[in-house]
Amino acid sequence: MTVSGRWVVGVDIGGTNLVVGMIPVGGGPPVGLRSRATEAELGPDVAVDQIVRMARESIDETLAQEDGHARDIAGVGIGCPGPLDLDAGVVLATPNLGWTNYPIRDRIADALQLPGTVDNDANCATFGEWWQGAGRGVEHLVGVTLGTGIGAGLILNGELVRGASGSAGEFGHTTIDFSGRRCACGNYGCLEAYASGPNIAARAREGLEVGYESVLLDLVEGDLDLLSAAIVYEALVLGDEYAHEVMLETAKLLGAGIANIVNTLNPEVIVIVGGVTRAGDHLFGPLRAEVKRRAFKSAVEACRIVPGELPETAGVIGAAGVFISEMIDPL
Amino acid sequence: MTVSGRWVVGVDIGGTNLVVGMIPVGGGPPVGLRSRATEAELGPDVAVDQIVRMARESIDETLAQEDGHARDIAGVGIGCPGPLDLDAGVVLATPNLGWTNYPIRDRIADALQLPGTVDNDANCATFGEWWQGAGRGVEHLVGVTLGTGIGAGLILNGELVRGASGSAGEFGHTTIDFSGRRCACGNYGCLEAYASGPNIAARAREGLEVGYESVLLDLVEGDLDLLSAAIVYEALVLGDEYAHEVMLETAKLLGAGIANIVNTLNPEVIVIVGGVTRAGDHLFGPLRAEVKRRAFKSAVEACRIVPGELPETAGVIGAAGVFISEMIDPL
Repeated sequence: MTVSGRWVVGVDIGGTNLVVGMIPVGGGPPVGLRSRATEAELGPDVAVDQIVRMARESIDETLAQEDGHARDIAGVGIGCPGPLDLDAGVVLATPNLGWTNYPIRDRIADALQLPGTVDNDANCATFGEWWQGAGRGVEHLVGVTLGTGIGAGLILNGELVRGASGSAGEFGHTTIDFSGRRCACGNYGCLEAYASGPNIAARAREGLEVGYESVLLDLVEGDLDLLSAAIVYEALVLGDEYAHEVMLETAKLLGAGIANIVNTLNPEVIVIVGGVTRAGDHLFGPLRAEVKRRAFKSAVEACRIVPGELPETAGVIGAAGVFISEMIDPL
Repeated sequence: MTVSGRWVVGVDIGGTNLVVGMIPVGGGPPVGLRSRATEAELGPDVAVDQIVRMARESIDETLAQEDGHARDIAGVGIGCPGPLDLDAGVVLATPNLGWTNYPIRDRIADALQLPGTVDNDANCATFGEWWQGAGRGVEHLVGVTLGTGIGAGLILNGELVRGASGSAGEFGHTTIDFSGRRCACGNYGCLEAYASGPNIAARAREGLEVGYESVLLDLVEGDLDLLSAAIVYEALVLGDEYAHEVMLETAKLLGAGIANIVNTLNPEVIVIVGGVTRAGDHLFGPLRAEVKRRAFKSAVEACRIVPGELPETAGVIGAAGVFISEMIDPL
């Protein structure tokens, strides 16, 4: 199907927030941006109602502002945590949202009476950074999402690579330590078992339990269950040595995983997005050093490893971008 | 440039053998196949002279047999161990051949007065298995070469992925054991440090040195320096328990590396080629079990892990296939 129009509605469904905005088909920042808490526990129907309401507001605002007509809206591109059935537009099961077998694409598209596409959140964030962010104009880009989980989106030879069953990019569950730490997936030594937000907190907690001294104990008022990656970062900024050590180890482990991507895919850019990147040079410095130590010189020299440039909007821009590349024209 | 013709000369430059044959542009087995020892130590000029002589014989035989004319030869596709400068057609440095900064493409192409292309051996073997072997007709294929080194070729979205500087596929140097065995590349815990031919032999040797009993000692008449992966396989066939253990561990380590590919790229087929695959089910059985244990169910179910179907000719077929896809028509 080929459609046309001046804008595409971008929808980014995250574990924490729903973001909706109008993305110009020719590129440019979102217009009429809306954001609110996801409240996934209320179920997908409630979330879809919210998304549709936000989208209508965003459409009205944009058309009024930009002197547009309803026919100028080409469609709606949706980004959602997976795994998804891409062809059917169905969320199969999302640990972070708790929704299963839900036809997210058609529920939103039908309510808006627009054609729709859906892709997973890591692919959308990567596509957004490729189209309008830190990876503009390159042929080979890997986007790495660091958060509750660790994922990746792959753009190779100038195209999104989704794989045989749409599940390419499960980077968090690649083995970096053959007989290492147990992962929630049941496997041992997955990257995610070390470097996801919750596992950074878990590793910090384990050290404190065996007696390491740290300001972290004060920050959580002695309740180690309250530890999070964000609090480790807070302690780091306060100059805490133990927090520094935890972040350094995280950077090295992540570096090993990213060196695997560099050696396997030889990308021009690796864009890292997500909350953990707030650690800035505390993370990127030792991470780049570890990649340099582990990957081939020519591949390291060809690759920039950078934080995302669109921390709030990569997902919503990329969701619309995927719609445009599938339904309108390859970008 | 676009050229035409009925055949392409395929050239496969291996550490052990040079193989040359005429590959029909529309597909089909090689005609006028020639093979001889590489004798890399005599230098690249000598090897090129041999290749050109073999190619002329192969061309003459094919044209006579098939009632063809010189104009029916479209060009020459060359496969060579890397790293290569693909645009310049230059071998930069090949540990296995000992050649450096040698313009392999133009030396062969000019002597034959034909247009030429060059690509690395893993890409060519993968392309050959994709075009005419175990991966026919799929969109997402990874070829893994197991030999003196471990490499990979990637075909994703129906296209060869070479990366930003032509070095994609350095699968042997991906980390599977963060603080593991030292690799010849200087890094620790690379897959190649465990599962290449020489490292399978090294691991077997280490066990024998600390007192494991095995028929291996008889097979090498007590000289452990003579151990090779082929001899470990020989002992395995004789029912040797220690050799079985070494191969089982190899399969598990390889399985972890291949599970990383399955989770990252979600291919339809992984074709494994090279001498080590002679171990057959002794290798593939536990390897597939380990992949199943480590990778996501949907990705495992979407992926066949199989030995190559063109053990002698994947390289020469693929080298010609790369020429055809670049110079004549995408296959």
